[in-house]
Amino acid sequence: MGFKESLDTPCLVVHQEILEQNVAEMAEYAASRGIKVRPHQKTHKTAEIARMQMEAGAIGGTCAKLGEAEVLIDSGALDDVLVANEIVGEQKIQRLLALMERAHMMVAVDGVDAAQRLSDACEQAGKQLDVLLEVNTGLNRAGLKPGEEVLALAERVGEMRGLRIRGIMTHEGHVAAAKDADDLVEIARDAGTNLVATAKLLRQNGFDIDVVSVGSTPAAFATTTIEGITEMRPGTYVFNDNMAFRFGRVTPDRCALRILATVVSRPAPDRAVVDSGSKTLAMDPSPSKKGFGYVVDYPDATIVFVSEEHGVIELPENARDLKVGDRIEIIPNHVCPTVNLQDEMFVVRDGEVVGCWDVIARGKVR
Amino acid sequence: MGFKESLDTPCLVVHQEILEQNVAEMAEYAASRGIKVRPHQKTHKTAEIARMQMEAGAIGGTCAKLGEAEVLIDSGALDDVLVANEIVGEQKIQRLLALMERAHMMVAVDGVDAAQRLSDACEQAGKQLDVLLEVNTGLNRAGLKPGEEVLALAERVGEMRGLRIRGIMTHEGHVAAAKDADDLVEIARDAGTNLVATAKLLRQNGFDIDVVSVGSTPAAFATTTIEGITEMRPGTYVFNDNMAFRFGRVTPDRCALRILATVVSRPAPDRAVVDSGSKTLAMDPSPSKKGFGYVVDYPDATIVFVSEEHGVIELPENARDLKVGDRIEIIPNHVCPTVNLQDEMFVVRDGEVVGCWDVIARGKVR
Repeated sequence: MGFKESLDTPCLVVHQEILEQNVAEMAEYAASRGIKVRPHQKTHKTAEIARMQMEAGAIGGTCAKLGEAEVLIDSGALDDVLVANEIVGEQKIQRLLALMERAHMMVAVDGVDAAQRLSDACEQAGKQLDVLLEVNTGLNRAGLKPGEEVLALAERVGEMRGLRIRGIMTHEGHVAAAKDADDLVEIARDAGTNLVATAKLLRQNGFDIDVVSVGSTPAAFATTTIEGITEMRPGTYVFNDNMAFRFGRVTPDRCALRILATVVSRPAPDRAVVDSGSKTLAMDPSPSKKGFGYVVDYPDATIVFVSEEHGVIELPENARDLKVGDRIEIIPNHVCPTVNLQDEMFVVRDGEVVGCWDVIARGKVR
Repeated sequence: MGFKESLDTPCLVVHQEILEQNVAEMAEYAASRGIKVRPHQKTHKTAEIARMQMEAGAIGGTCAKLGEAEVLIDSGALDDVLVANEIVGEQKIQRLLALMERAHMMVAVDGVDAAQRLSDACEQAGKQLDVLLEVNTGLNRAGLKPGEEVLALAERVGEMRGLRIRGIMTHEGHVAAAKDADDLVEIARDAGTNLVATAKLLRQNGFDIDVVSVGSTPAAFATTTIEGITEMRPGTYVFNDNMAFRFGRVTPDRCALRILATVVSRPAPDRAVVDSGSKTLAMDPSPSKKGFGYVVDYPDATIVFVSEEHGVIELPENARDLKVGDRIEIIPNHVCPTVNLQDEMFVVRDGEVVGCWDVIARGKVR
């Protein structure tokens, strides 16, 4: 029986052939440029895919929170993790110290006070923690401005005996605002250029900067064209999503993860309701397509409205054969929060379910 | 130690005094109008609050999916559940039959084909399932148009021997589009009027309509003023949220559930970053306030941007004393999807943590 019939819905389906192709392609690209890959685990949150990435040559993993790092290290899939985030609070510092006993850890730092607390705790525990200074290249989230602001932080952190500056990092997620493919490349290259210039400034001031690290799948093939970037942290590339279609970068057949949904109501000729709403699709908007996801076999259909358990699909003339009970695949706008909503993903190969992977880092927000 | 210091963040905090007040107020209101309460469980997803609602006089629970019903019935908190949704697919029909062995179940029906499959399965199992016909009073999700469309369905379902029509239901969630308090009341009363008129039409045609059921907390005190409504299914009222502030209906001190967050970065004078992003706050927009939540002690601060693990707060002059490590409470825009993102909620009374409730129906999308 094919996967569309054998599974209950809504659920996550990962097409293994596409996943393998995506992992291999990024590994080959990075190798061709001599850049290290430290894939972001937030996209898949599974030990199985972490292992695939390591086998393809990744140097370790990137996590958003300590909780993700804990379960992925405990699974045995990773033993070298960058938490690309600021670690604040006594509970978290103790958890980080515990993780340092069983894996190589790095974290981001963007302020003196938080860094000092981290350093004091490490020194007291007789440890030294590797840190990357976080640089704001335009997203305006965390991180300091490139250049002098980062240098001033480096001078303070450089004196802290519990910390060791290993390099600098940015997340150039502001490429999401790009108007077209050329604009995206320009924004990404600007970010990369500012980051590399900051690395140079730090080196001129005596700092040993090994790691110059960039993130973001949409920008992956652009930021990394700047000479001096040493590491990339793409996440979404393993699955791709509706965002990734933008500007023709990938096609839907390169999107490995889909939501399998069932039509549960056909209350009007131009309207179908599926059993997948915001609790399954998430609510991230798509800059490339109206609505809350891409309906694989009905690309002209639009998911115009979601409530938690309902997706309301507006059907053009060519999609009105959809009937109650039909199963459809939906590519999410943003795959990472979608994965976070489920406990497992079903693995499909040649159209049949061949496995089930636990989303072990689901919900690890702490 | 107060809850703000003792808990790791981000996490859900429920203020028990406010919760108790909210549950009591709705029970009193319904009793004063002679309307039965069948609270929607999707808001809290916990056995503890289901029990509180039953003790306050609820006649049973409403669930969005069978999976929610399964865990809440298994917990012993509920033995009478309406799944206010269409049940489609063989796996789900079998699960529903199994639930009918241990609880009184009702489900929504809005189409002949799906109803026939349900009926056939019930008949084959020697059972009869209570159903409510779903009426679309303006949300344009599932449900048939009031009046003749519903009557036509009733005539077909009335012949199905596995089903018993118990009444009709609507979800008047389209009050969310109201422009002001008067407009909200008008939309809700229109929905209620159309629903009651449909019940009358069905009765005139010989159908025994016991249940005339409405949903939606924002509309709860308006729809139920229409004579002939017998049952209400409010959900959000137990906690309230940023949506509930609209038009002055409630004040923030009636919002029982908050996200406790930590400031992790202060990269610019007018910007703070907290450890709570879309994976904690969810991304539902608020029609009443810009941004992704209401910062309790800094009502003029705006959460202008969220990524998965970061909330970026724009700070007006009067909120710039926020520093790294500070803990703040955030009231979510829409509390239901926020609760769905966590495995537990911490119970606070008199400012101290007094318990922890498992969100047992989290992620039950099937």
